[in-house]
Amino acid sequence: MTRTFSFTLEATDGAARLGRIETPRGEIRTPAFMPVGTAATVKAMMPESVRATGADILLGNTYHLMLRPGAERIARLGGLHAFMNWERPILTDSGGFQVMSLADLRKMTERGVTFRSHIDGSKHELTPESSMEIQRLLGSDIVMAFDECTTFPAEKEVAASSMALSMRWAERSRDAFGDRPGHALFGIQQGSVYRDLRQESAEALTSLDFPGYAIGGLAVGEGQEAMFDVLDYAPAMLPQDRPRYLMGVGKPDDIVGAVKRGVDMMDCVLPSRSGRTGQAFTRRGAVNIKNARHADDPRPLDEQCTCPACRHYSRAYLHHVFRAGEMISGMLLTWHNLHYFQQIMQGMREAIAAGTFEAWEREFHAARGEGDIDPV
Amino acid sequence: MTRTFSFTLEATDGAARLGRIETPRGEIRTPAFMPVGTAATVKAMMPESVRATGADILLGNTYHLMLRPGAERIARLGGLHAFMNWERPILTDSGGFQVMSLADLRKMTERGVTFRSHIDGSKHELTPESSMEIQRLLGSDIVMAFDECTTFPAEKEVAASSMALSMRWAERSRDAFGDRPGHALFGIQQGSVYRDLRQESAEALTSLDFPGYAIGGLAVGEGQEAMFDVLDYAPAMLPQDRPRYLMGVGKPDDIVGAVKRGVDMMDCVLPSRSGRTGQAFTRRGAVNIKNARHADDPRPLDEQCTCPACRHYSRAYLHHVFRAGEMISGMLLTWHNLHYFQQIMQGMREAIAAGTFEAWEREFHAARGEGDIDPV
Repeated sequence: MTRTFSFTLEATDGAARLGRIETPRGEIRTPAFMPVGTAATVKAMMPESVRATGADILLGNTYHLMLRPGAERIARLGGLHAFMNWERPILTDSGGFQVMSLADLRKMTERGVTFRSHIDGSKHELTPESSMEIQRLLGSDIVMAFDECTTFPAEKEVAASSMALSMRWAERSRDAFGDRPGHALFGIQQGSVYRDLRQESAEALTSLDFPGYAIGGLAVGEGQEAMFDVLDYAPAMLPQDRPRYLMGVGKPDDIVGAVKRGVDMMDCVLPSRSGRTGQAFTRRGAVNIKNARHADDPRPLDEQCTCPACRHYSRAYLHHVFRAGEMISGMLLTWHNLHYFQQIMQGMREAIAAGTFEAWEREFHAARGEGDIDPV
Repeated sequence: MTRTFSFTLEATDGAARLGRIETPRGEIRTPAFMPVGTAATVKAMMPESVRATGADILLGNTYHLMLRPGAERIARLGGLHAFMNWERPILTDSGGFQVMSLADLRKMTERGVTFRSHIDGSKHELTPESSMEIQRLLGSDIVMAFDECTTFPAEKEVAASSMALSMRWAERSRDAFGDRPGHALFGIQQGSVYRDLRQESAEALTSLDFPGYAIGGLAVGEGQEAMFDVLDYAPAMLPQDRPRYLMGVGKPDDIVGAVKRGVDMMDCVLPSRSGRTGQAFTRRGAVNIKNARHADDPRPLDEQCTCPACRHYSRAYLHHVFRAGEMISGMLLTWHNLHYFQQIMQGMREAIAAGTFEAWEREFHAARGEGDIDPV
């Protein structure tokens, strides 16, 4: 097994890329979808079940973990991998985005952000340096630079100044991260929807020579069209030979559109969160299992799906356990959704390898009109 | 595979019995502990995981299932086994006990009980005849006679008249059940804590020649000592060649004491309910995982236990996910508890086979004083 972090670009098909990240904890096939394990668990799933869906890597949330149970505690207990029984790669975010969306009494300065915990009101600070230290304590394989996720919409001036701050923080993150063989620090491109700011950000990051780059500041309310507009140019601004990670995306068609435009990695809570609220994603679109018309339906969610929910249970059963508030409802629907998301990734990887991405994408969109599926 | 229902008594050790129930859906090793799958799911567990703990049979609750999703609906969907993806034997209760503890506006007559659903206020009736019909629609392998569970404490007169009603209902249950090869109807002994009433009840039931008998009206608040007092004589009043089922029991030491006194089958929500509220049962006693002293504890719940919670997770992790309200907390603790309960059953079966039940029981009790365990 490799002792270092590396990325190999294996094939391209249009802008879509097939690749492989190697880490001491195992290989990540790209394009990759990373399920979110916020508080050291992918909600409603056993980690071996997450793996069974085809996930090569999980995402952990620095903000949540630093507050509860605490990064030092996790380090004493052997690190996040051992703690949560997931021995494969883990990517952690920097905490920056979650602080701005969840914490109380936030105050941002050049130095970083002070805030109070949304759990118990305790006071904390996150800076590029402390974020690197916390992610080191967690034992994260892919560490994210501490940045400010520019809100949307943002006037160009605001976006420029926010991006410039993130670039200064990226440099401080790199300096604090140091040299940790087998672990990688990713820089994060900002610049909102402004092409020249995205270019400026890409150049600033590239000069710091990160082993991977994220495209930040998207999926924050701008809508799919505006996001795709940025993705039409932003990925190509980043080095071809490094993985590109689009943060917090997305719905199935967001994911497909992002891969088509040159993105290699994504993460989103959508498959697990929707699973707990009764929404299943299928080839044919979304199914709202709460809907009374499923009450007597003997069919599976998707007769072609091989996940446990589809192999062993009817829509009628899934409807019943959802209505009865039974935990198995969230367990089965989350499993199904994660399985389906990984099937999309697998389908895209095969299509890129075969040079048939365009045909695959056409079929993906065509299937979504077909069925007897609830409107999304 | 057998087409009929049969019980074989394979060994005895004192009053403790080792046996085997054969059904068309598989074998039930006795003494058996039946996890409770109230609403067509053992809460927080996948059925294959329940099986992996060693369960041969589940219990389903007629009252809950008739109200939601409805017995006719389950029948249309292929029966309870297919509905909930559990192909092995299922025992259903008669609904009588749950009606009296959960339903609204109950009214009992010689004919049966009318009540309103605690879920939606809809009006229903349960009689010996309708209970048999509902359990037939569910596809239950072991059907329970419709009875009145005498409340505790009960004056002797009240207990006698309640028992007499249950005996009349037992006969109506038998007549309504009819002849269903491969399925068995169990009669239920009542009589509260009165030995002569228990004897009278046993004789009434035995004259109806059931393939199995339950000991009802215990574990209803009388305490372990009073329960064991009854179990010192009640099981022996029932035919040696039929399985004896003690309903709704219990804690680990209740189970051991019951088997010692000649009980073959038990069921209880305790391992699953406790699992969801942070209580783990171990060889050494109960562990309250909420307790702050587990926050940094790298040890498993029980270093000798082979369940997934003990093989892969620290007490610190279990504490963290419980405090964070994560579903995996209930999933892991329920799995552990069900595993532990089945380990107790397996240990007792082996001890009875070897004629060493007394030594096994001594060890069981000795271990419980040992550890670093929270007081129960």
